[in-house]
Amino acid sequence: MREIRVEDLKDMARGAAVLGTGGGGDPYVGRLLAQEAIRRHGPVPLTDPAGLPDDAVVIPTAFMGAPTVMLEKLPSGQELIAALRALEELIGAKATHTVSIEAGGLNSMIPIAAAAELGLPLVDGDGMGRAFPELQMLLPTLGGIAATPMALADERGNSVGVRTVDNAWAERFARAATIEMGCSAAVSLYVLTGRQVKDFMVHGTITLCRRIGAAIREAAGRHADPVAAAAGTLGGRQVFQGKLVDVERGTSGGFARGAAVLEGLGTDLGTRMTIAFQNENLVARRGDEVVASVPDLVCVLDTDTGEPVTTETLRYGLRVSVVVAPCDPRWRTPEGLKLAGPAYFGYDHAYQPV
Amino acid sequence: MREIRVEDLKDMARGAAVLGTGGGGDPYVGRLLAQEAIRRHGPVPLTDPAGLPDDAVVIPTAFMGAPTVMLEKLPSGQELIAALRALEELIGAKATHTVSIEAGGLNSMIPIAAAAELGLPLVDGDGMGRAFPELQMLLPTLGGIAATPMALADERGNSVGVRTVDNAWAERFARAATIEMGCSAAVSLYVLTGRQVKDFMVHGTITLCRRIGAAIREAAGRHADPVAAAAGTLGGRQVFQGKLVDVERGTSGGFARGAAVLEGLGTDLGTRMTIAFQNENLVARRGDEVVASVPDLVCVLDTDTGEPVTTETLRYGLRVSVVVAPCDPRWRTPEGLKLAGPAYFGYDHAYQPV
Repeated sequence: MREIRVEDLKDMARGAAVLGTGGGGDPYVGRLLAQEAIRRHGPVPLTDPAGLPDDAVVIPTAFMGAPTVMLEKLPSGQELIAALRALEELIGAKATHTVSIEAGGLNSMIPIAAAAELGLPLVDGDGMGRAFPELQMLLPTLGGIAATPMALADERGNSVGVRTVDNAWAERFARAATIEMGCSAAVSLYVLTGRQVKDFMVHGTITLCRRIGAAIREAAGRHADPVAAAAGTLGGRQVFQGKLVDVERGTSGGFARGAAVLEGLGTDLGTRMTIAFQNENLVARRGDEVVASVPDLVCVLDTDTGEPVTTETLRYGLRVSVVVAPCDPRWRTPEGLKLAGPAYFGYDHAYQPV
Repeated sequence: MREIRVEDLKDMARGAAVLGTGGGGDPYVGRLLAQEAIRRHGPVPLTDPAGLPDDAVVIPTAFMGAPTVMLEKLPSGQELIAALRALEELIGAKATHTVSIEAGGLNSMIPIAAAAELGLPLVDGDGMGRAFPELQMLLPTLGGIAATPMALADERGNSVGVRTVDNAWAERFARAATIEMGCSAAVSLYVLTGRQVKDFMVHGTITLCRRIGAAIREAAGRHADPVAAAAGTLGGRQVFQGKLVDVERGTSGGFARGAAVLEGLGTDLGTRMTIAFQNENLVARRGDEVVASVPDLVCVLDTDTGEPVTTETLRYGLRVSVVVAPCDPRWRTPEGLKLAGPAYFGYDHAYQPV
């Protein structure tokens, strides 16, 4: 794929929402944004990381906040441009490319919209290979790359620029500003050189999103099992199928937090699975046993259609299947686990790779 | 007075803390900061607003946060310089002068320290003629001057730049960043031209601070009534003397909030006065009757020494006198009252000028 066209977006958004593991924003909203921008400005050139000049200036674009809020307050391209321009001003350089910081229904599509609006090529990659709730949880953090200078912008015309001594501080200031902005903000951060993209980002994420999305669509179209198709393309496996019988949720500290309870169906009849989330699905438990946990991927898909179910759309009665898949191997190192393993999120179980 | 020397600082800090109406920071901390800076860099030239070139670039320097915290976490000149430099970068211009945004034990002295460190002259004025807890409560706001671009910095090396659509938004983002910085931050904001300083700032505040401080010192020295001396220099009057019998306080939303209860002594025997504060003293009540209220000045002074008592040093048993004084007349206009009158602070009494 050398460029992204409107007809690619449905598969891409669907696949991105699978990798988003319940977070990373709503694929419908993400697709609409990208679609609008491509219709206005034309297809977006897609650049493989390997083909980037080492001195390229790659500025990621994203939305930060509680996905529950973003469903009600639709982001627009204007905030994205404002955040990127504010960051360009802080660093005194212009972006040559943009890229996703995470895979997710919204945050994989946002950079497509931004690229179209700004006339920039998009890099085929992302910073996590999934979605995570806090902004220091990026593979470039493991490579010593600073999240700041960083800029945030809202739909009113407010913007905030941030320089911090480390990436955990960046998360604190950005989260505080995002909360003031109404729990949703456009953000540009982690300015990367082409060399750094090659070394520290996940390669090929956009292409993978489209493949996952297409596999689900094709399987559903020929009445095959779309969940199995998704699991196969992801390199993961299905661990549960059931019906959603309870969802607890709240918004605190700028995050959507809660847990979903599934009652088993089919071969899982008589058992229960609980999935705890903080924007993203964090831990899946069958009874008391941890089946999968961050940093590995816990994906909830509609059993019939294979469509990914984000944490904000979990609702009573949904028939869903749970697919787990291995994370990028760099997340499994001691440094990776320190940044985004179970202990960071307050769990006391040891990490067991799926 | 054409320059500020170390020997001026005690009177100046004392008088500033009187105008600070309980807030604006601790005069001891403020004096030490200014003293250190003048010892290292020499006296600070003081410029009358009338003598400013119209195109002067006047950048205020201040500390923002809860004064209770600033007593424990002493500010340093480094954060001030970092905040001012960050703002200069945002506006693409260098400061020719600095100035106080408010009168207060700390925030009148901070710009002296900053001026000494930066080699800039200080403007003899301030933005309120007193201290107020929120950053949009500045006379320049009434003149349509924007608080942003604004920059905040902490002692760790973090900095945040803010551009907003109005000054109330500036307060929200600055407060959120200040809370993350540990409830205390150096801030530069309200970039003013020389012309705007002439038109919208209070003139002569630094000189007035020194006069008030000197009047208290001289009266105490000759065993005259230092409270009467302060009231006279302020153009106010004493309304109560008593003993502090109760102080409620808490830190919420980045502010020190609470109330002090005084039991009358002398001619006030048998009556009580309550003073509500949010960083600054807001409302003084004798029984249920409002005696004085924002935007007028409610000052609490030690009855014996005339030393100003800040809200964070209010403690059981202190013998204090309450002096009230008129605010700058611009605060008494409908626009001024909307910005900093009783209703803004959640009170339902009508404003009665003292």
